[in-house]
Amino acid sequence: MECDPIGTVHTPFETTSEAPRQGFRDDAEGILDVDPAYREGLTGFDGDRVVVVWWADRADRSVLTLDRDPGRGVFTSRSPARPNPVCVTECAVETVDPTAGRLDLRGVDMADGSPVIDLKVPLD
Amino acid sequence: MECDPIGTVHTPFETTSEAPRQGFRDDAEGILDVDPAYREGLTGFDGDRVVVVWWADRADRSVLTLDRDPGRGVFTSRSPARPNPVCVTECAVETVDPTAGRLDLRGVDMADGSPVIDLKVPLD
Repeated sequence: MECDPIGTVHTPFETTSEAPRQGFRDDAEGILDVDPAYREGLTGFDGDRVVVVWWADRADRSVLTLDRDPGRGVFTSRSPARPNPVCVTECAVETVDPTAGRLDLRGVDMADGSPVIDLKVPLD
Repeated sequence: MECDPIGTVHTPFETTSEAPRQGFRDDAEGILDVDPAYREGLTGFDGDRVVVVWWADRADRSVLTLDRDPGRGVFTSRSPARPNPVCVTECAVETVDPTAGRLDLRGVDMADGSPVIDLKVPLD
């Protein structure tokens, strides 16, 4: 199952270990750039929150238990290190420009430059 | 970015269009089978909820706007039809057997037989 990046997220964090564990509790600001080929998918976007599905491209995909607690499996956590490093972060949307493919976000926890694979509206 | 299935989910729904739009509000029961190679990732799982990241393998990946409202882009929705059909459903866990790689779930909205690519604990 092949994922194509739809864009890239820019954050203050060089690595995920520097990032807050739960982005939505933090005020860290980031910018999400949607690639031109996918910008039509933002048509009519008017929400104040967005679920960002991103790919932790520097994560260790070989681990099944937690480094910090080998008695717990990766599926009992939200660590980016896991067989498929698909991460899910709900962020606040400060501004959105669908034509430019740009969202200004608050509450990011991605490593800078991480590929984005999807955007969704949160559940009510 | 290549995703490998870690398991498969069995549900009462032949297609996603039959499924409830927001699984957690529904009581539909499903069974998640984790492949043997990934069962160690369930070690110590004791939560009563789980975030299932799954792949809508029958979804149309070519669309950027909604069939039901072409004035809205797919990124303003949670429809499975989108460039990367990665779906995120939080379910209740009725029972879990890490050794057998089986979770009995409630609140599923996947099409029967969908590949699962990740499991996470929900945010507090």
